[in-house]
Amino acid sequence: MSRPPGRKQENHKISRELFVLTYGALVAQLCKDYEKDEDVNACLDRMGYGIGVRLIDDFLARSAVKKCRSYSETADMIAQVAFKMYLGITPSVSCSSAAGNEFSLILDKNPLVDFVEELPAERASLCYCNLLCGVIRGALEMVHLAAEVTFLQDRLKGDPVTEIGITFLRKAEDRKHKR
Amino acid sequence: MSRPPGRKQENHKISRELFVLTYGALVAQLCKDYEKDEDVNACLDRMGYGIGVRLIDDFLARSAVKKCRSYSETADMIAQVAFKMYLGITPSVSCSSAAGNEFSLILDKNPLVDFVEELPAERASLCYCNLLCGVIRGALEMVHLAAEVTFLQDRLKGDPVTEIGITFLRKAEDRKHKR
Repeated sequence: MSRPPGRKQENHKISRELFVLTYGALVAQLCKDYEKDEDVNACLDRMGYGIGVRLIDDFLARSAVKKCRSYSETADMIAQVAFKMYLGITPSVSCSSAAGNEFSLILDKNPLVDFVEELPAERASLCYCNLLCGVIRGALEMVHLAAEVTFLQDRLKGDPVTEIGITFLRKAEDRKHKR
Repeated sequence: MSRPPGRKQENHKISRELFVLTYGALVAQLCKDYEKDEDVNACLDRMGYGIGVRLIDDFLARSAVKKCRSYSETADMIAQVAFKMYLGITPSVSCSSAAGNEFSLILDKNPLVDFVEELPAERASLCYCNLLCGVIRGALEMVHLAAEVTFLQDRLKGDPVTEIGITFLRKAEDRKHKR
């Protein structure tokens, strides 16, 4: 049961609060930089994408998961393994399309907003946690799964739950046509 | 031995990698925003200050530490309890002044730079982790300890170790005079 030195599980864990406050500082800075909420959202998504692209290696190495055989399995993996590993929460998953390529992650609790009470009135369109969408999109792309990932509901905006929608795009062309 | 629901220790822990990459995105954004390294450093310090001011409550509540009776005890507390709690590392501490108010935290390992290889040539004066200095300064101020906190050495800049210097200022006036 011995582990090689320096690879103890504890080494990978840090306290959430510092992360949550640092994330808040990042969003606040982007709100200074960009007047329009849409630009802040796009920037957070882009940053998240860059993070997801790099994080996937860490995820595959540490989770030792096998290749998923369906979109449904992939969505479960994101919720039950990735969210648990990186944010310490496990969203529930539901499939929201007959075609079987649209999924919702429902977050009862969103640790990223721990210190946020509500969005200021002039920032009503801000997707505060949009970085997460980018992270998921970037990580999926690295395992050859194109997806659109957006917030469908957000408690910060008064919705009853926080819901992230993931739509898997069957081919690269699907995406182009959809846009 | 039961704990109230939702307050389990695990709930406070997240994986370090997401934080480290998010912090990298923050620094990259500030480098876009500010041409001069000094301005990026100042901005990181200011952001860190705001975080420290808020984080101290969390720290005091979770660590349940008693009031420190000396600067030396305070420096040990920062290294052994706060760094351990928030970053999962324990810097070594040395006192570097006869007056007993200057301390160095030596970080053998700096988790914040896990994904950073080296600073780009045009960013030679960047204090990449300057947020940490601000966090320490802000948190100390909330327990009525004025301090100057700066990076004295940084492995990212080719120094043999990473060293954070903390100078406790005996009175508010000391600080003014020093500046």
